[in-house]
Amino acid sequence: MYAPGACDEVASAVRARLEALGVRAVNLMSSPGSGKTTLLERTIQDLGGRRSIAVVEADQETALDADRIRRTGVDVVQVNTGAAGHLDAPTLDRALDVLDPAPKSLLFVENVGNLVGPARFDLGEAGQVVLISVTEGTDKPLKYPYIFAAADLVVINKLDLLPYVDFDIDACRLHVASVNPAATVVTVSATRGDNLTDWYGWLFS
Amino acid sequence: MYAPGACDEVASAVRARLEALGVRAVNLMSSPGSGKTTLLERTIQDLGGRRSIAVVEADQETALDADRIRRTGVDVVQVNTGAAGHLDAPTLDRALDVLDPAPKSLLFVENVGNLVGPARFDLGEAGQVVLISVTEGTDKPLKYPYIFAAADLVVINKLDLLPYVDFDIDACRLHVASVNPAATVVTVSATRGDNLTDWYGWLFS
Repeated sequence: MYAPGACDEVASAVRARLEALGVRAVNLMSSPGSGKTTLLERTIQDLGGRRSIAVVEADQETALDADRIRRTGVDVVQVNTGAAGHLDAPTLDRALDVLDPAPKSLLFVENVGNLVGPARFDLGEAGQVVLISVTEGTDKPLKYPYIFAAADLVVINKLDLLPYVDFDIDACRLHVASVNPAATVVTVSATRGDNLTDWYGWLFS
Repeated sequence: MYAPGACDEVASAVRARLEALGVRAVNLMSSPGSGKTTLLERTIQDLGGRRSIAVVEADQETALDADRIRRTGVDVVQVNTGAAGHLDAPTLDRALDVLDPAPKSLLFVENVGNLVGPARFDLGEAGQVVLISVTEGTDKPLKYPYIFAAADLVVINKLDLLPYVDFDIDACRLHVASVNPAATVVTVSATRGDNLTDWYGWLFS
């Protein structure tokens, strides 16, 4: 396990490697259970015909998420971080050796479910996405500002559960803006398919 | 910020301090938004007349949770951990200096929302509780085994949302047992009040 910042040179090398291949790498971060894998499954179903997609899955333990992604037919590598709560650049670099993503492909990195650790580790990715689900509470961008400040895109997920929980989308958008005025915010339901074109629009922007 | 294990002596001192006072200290850990604060609000409402209660709230930033707890009328101290994702024993020790819990009281420590970091830090508490909500997915004990292995009690929360999500309580119980056969598991809805007597039974056991 590395300290934050210790791998910044490796992260720069990963970034150069991906840029040379024309690969767009997107780092998905969220609490456990916010719907990262479900969003990926749906995205691969919807976009897999348009562009080559590869996935790196990170969890403390198990290959459950890689098994789910593999069923969609794309290449996936599972990384287990053990007691650590985030992926680091050297680990991603080794995963890429195995995955060998095609030029111009879309590479999704699904980080360990954690709103704390992943914010402090540069992986060399091109885009940082933070998911939050409406079951988690409106105040999360204020309580975990570091990861929201690092996000290029915030995806508010599980719109299908909105009728059953106390969550204020407008207030959550304001909270995101207060810690990160530059972040784009989209609201989706990965299970039901609501507004996924907004997410795809960002991916191809 | 301390490394895991660096504060074990302070944790031992905190444990001795609490034992001398006859204070039962319970460390609540979960993902962000699993319902720790809501469970505490409800618990204080229901039990506040029976026993003196004090609370330490930990978040990266804000005093939002302490504000919620203060409205219930009990003593509360908010700790902000900044970029760190967990409370450590020296910080809890200083919080106790301010809080000065009454002898024989019940002390709740609500940790930063995180299924990774808090598992690695002994605070000197008497009981470790991990919450998981049914919106987070059945597989979480397998994917984050370290924190579930450290738990004395696992609270499966948000039973009120069970009809709307794909969550298998029996399978989740088995997953908990596979990483921690000794853990007790209770299923509750903190917002609706389901089965809270099971939680209170554990607290006073």
